[in-house]
Amino acid sequence: MIGQIVDTNSAWLGNELTLLGIDVKRILSIPDKEADIHKALDLARLDSDLILMTGGLGPTKDDITKKALAAYVGSEFYFDQPLADRIAAFFERRGIPFLEAHRQQCYMPRAATSLKNEMGTAPGMLFQKDGKLLLSMPGVPYEMKWIFSNSFLPELAKLRKPDSHIYHRTIKTVGMGESRIAESIHDILDTFPPYITMSFLPSLGSVKLRLTAKHAEDKSAEVESLVIKIAEKIPKLIYGYDFTTIGEALRDVFVEKNLKLSTAESCTGGYLAHQLTTVPGSSKFYHGSIIAYDYAPKKSLLGVSPATLENHGAVSEETVKEMLSGVLEKFGTDLGVAISGIAGPGGGMPDKPVGTIWMAYGTKEDIRTYKLQLTKDRLKNIQYTSMAAMNALRKFVLGF
Amino acid sequence: MIGQIVDTNSAWLGNELTLLGIDVKRILSIPDKEADIHKALDLARLDSDLILMTGGLGPTKDDITKKALAAYVGSEFYFDQPLADRIAAFFERRGIPFLEAHRQQCYMPRAATSLKNEMGTAPGMLFQKDGKLLLSMPGVPYEMKWIFSNSFLPELAKLRKPDSHIYHRTIKTVGMGESRIAESIHDILDTFPPYITMSFLPSLGSVKLRLTAKHAEDKSAEVESLVIKIAEKIPKLIYGYDFTTIGEALRDVFVEKNLKLSTAESCTGGYLAHQLTTVPGSSKFYHGSIIAYDYAPKKSLLGVSPATLENHGAVSEETVKEMLSGVLEKFGTDLGVAISGIAGPGGGMPDKPVGTIWMAYGTKEDIRTYKLQLTKDRLKNIQYTSMAAMNALRKFVLGF
Repeated sequence: MIGQIVDTNSAWLGNELTLLGIDVKRILSIPDKEADIHKALDLARLDSDLILMTGGLGPTKDDITKKALAAYVGSEFYFDQPLADRIAAFFERRGIPFLEAHRQQCYMPRAATSLKNEMGTAPGMLFQKDGKLLLSMPGVPYEMKWIFSNSFLPELAKLRKPDSHIYHRTIKTVGMGESRIAESIHDILDTFPPYITMSFLPSLGSVKLRLTAKHAEDKSAEVESLVIKIAEKIPKLIYGYDFTTIGEALRDVFVEKNLKLSTAESCTGGYLAHQLTTVPGSSKFYHGSIIAYDYAPKKSLLGVSPATLENHGAVSEETVKEMLSGVLEKFGTDLGVAISGIAGPGGGMPDKPVGTIWMAYGTKEDIRTYKLQLTKDRLKNIQYTSMAAMNALRKFVLGF
Repeated sequence: MIGQIVDTNSAWLGNELTLLGIDVKRILSIPDKEADIHKALDLARLDSDLILMTGGLGPTKDDITKKALAAYVGSEFYFDQPLADRIAAFFERRGIPFLEAHRQQCYMPRAATSLKNEMGTAPGMLFQKDGKLLLSMPGVPYEMKWIFSNSFLPELAKLRKPDSHIYHRTIKTVGMGESRIAESIHDILDTFPPYITMSFLPSLGSVKLRLTAKHAEDKSAEVESLVIKIAEKIPKLIYGYDFTTIGEALRDVFVEKNLKLSTAESCTGGYLAHQLTTVPGSSKFYHGSIIAYDYAPKKSLLGVSPATLENHGAVSEETVKEMLSGVLEKFGTDLGVAISGIAGPGGGMPDKPVGTIWMAYGTKEDIRTYKLQLTKDRLKNIQYTSMAAMNALRKFVLGF
């Protein structure tokens, strides 16, 4: 509520529920106050069969969810001795003392089915009230995810009958804005039947096109044929489908051709390397990076000549070309990319305003360069540049 | 709703509103459907004076917020010619064609005060209904933030009278869990008056303690004296206050002593460098990194001996020590840190399970090492390790 924490749990749960064919009616964040919790539950029960709650199960004073829930369903507490034993053993292995606050966490509402949490001390709690399911989980993301997937889904499967067919497909594009894409595929969109909808989901430098079919019968084949028609209109923009990231798309083209990659970063400061090493299997094609955040390592590690830096500056076509040559030589990889720019917010000059970013990419024999003129938002510039670098490399290898 | 996007807007707005002394009653995410939008507005108006909305103002079919709002307040549309001229000029400068979808965005509800958006095409819209303020902004974070700060806050200042005094102070700690901190400062917590509250906000490897005073009179001095008492109990755990990050704390100790830092990363793959270069003014102490994601650059760039890699493996105390020596030599900095581990999810071995991470840090003369045994969650391991590395360096320089 006060902006200290970004809620990533809701998006994760939204995705899981969508894949299960469960419509999310509402995501609600409220303060840790009993009256607010009760009001939120009243609201949710009006139109929802399943209510998921996260947070407020910790050992400190402001963790009141368990108490509020027990009051809501009218339940007493009991001391869960096996839980206390499990936590004590867990703490002993890690050398953490078992405190009174932890003992308090072992009082559980009688009305709840306790759901195992192998990632932490607070179990999930599953209540049933007036035909509605109510699940309370800790707010720590990896604990919540573990309980949802391992302890809750098996319980849900016992209770639930599937209803209508839902089918999703997401086309992932990079390199064109949503309005222009919409105009390019306008004629296809006009042929959509009422039970198939499409959403444009733009984010930095990329646009996702999400098709959804909802029908009493399975309409997946119809969605797939629309996806093919769209792909034929904008083939070079599409780097993948569904959960494929641009990094995974890049990995696939590199691995298929058995090519190796290294990078040299200045203003992006390791963000591109981080994005690349987040890709599962990245070690199959990515060898590493030299991050030269200062003049000295640009010269000593990447071999940029002092004359180039003096005559053209660190943010220049000439410098990124020499950075690229340097990193290709040091790592001995087939391809590379080198980036130098003014990510902001400070550091702009009259001829090189904030957001000026130079990139060189390619092989020893075929070095291409590319200048971006971005915004004043540092993180956005870094993220956009990293995306653009991956797309430039993807297109280079594919010959686009 | 379906988990494709994590909502970062609400946390940003929650923080801005909290700083303005405005209580956030509720954060609500709903589908792009007119009935849901109207229901959400009905709910918000019951207990809130100010309603902020983001999203649904783009040029595509599923962007229905403007229409839904106009219907809600009973307003007609007019064509905003100056807006159309401004967008056309903006697009011309960037070489983007002005499409029919963009023209449609220039129809504005008569009841709305249009709020300038210098970051994009859709203006903010401010409505007043039955004494409540209703602000609609685009969902793109940098557009929303620009409108809120530059166009909305001046309007709000004209309308608002300050009510009670609110004072916040956040103590930022690293290195101990929330239960143990709570126990350490238990006697101080017991002396809190009813109008001062404290929340524990744990995140990976760190815990924030947020004190809030709410009173008809200014109680900031009382909060400050409690903060001092807490700081005296746990001095080594505290790296800063309020919005200070661990990276900024590290920068301050390095800059104060005029020390320079370089890093060598393997399993964290650039995340530490990214975190360090996100710190404003990082170029004053941070020179860069060698990211050796493969065996070859560990040898050729960092000078790890083949014998060490063969006898002890890449994830070993011996390897990180040699990586550290190598990076200190290459960059010529006073201090460095080197990391090698198995971040997961794959790659574990019987004697080195997933989550085994070795770190070496210090100077050429004083190399210290540190082994972490973390979880199976790759990103969490990388984030925790990066935090731990910054804290190890901070403590090294401070002599803790």
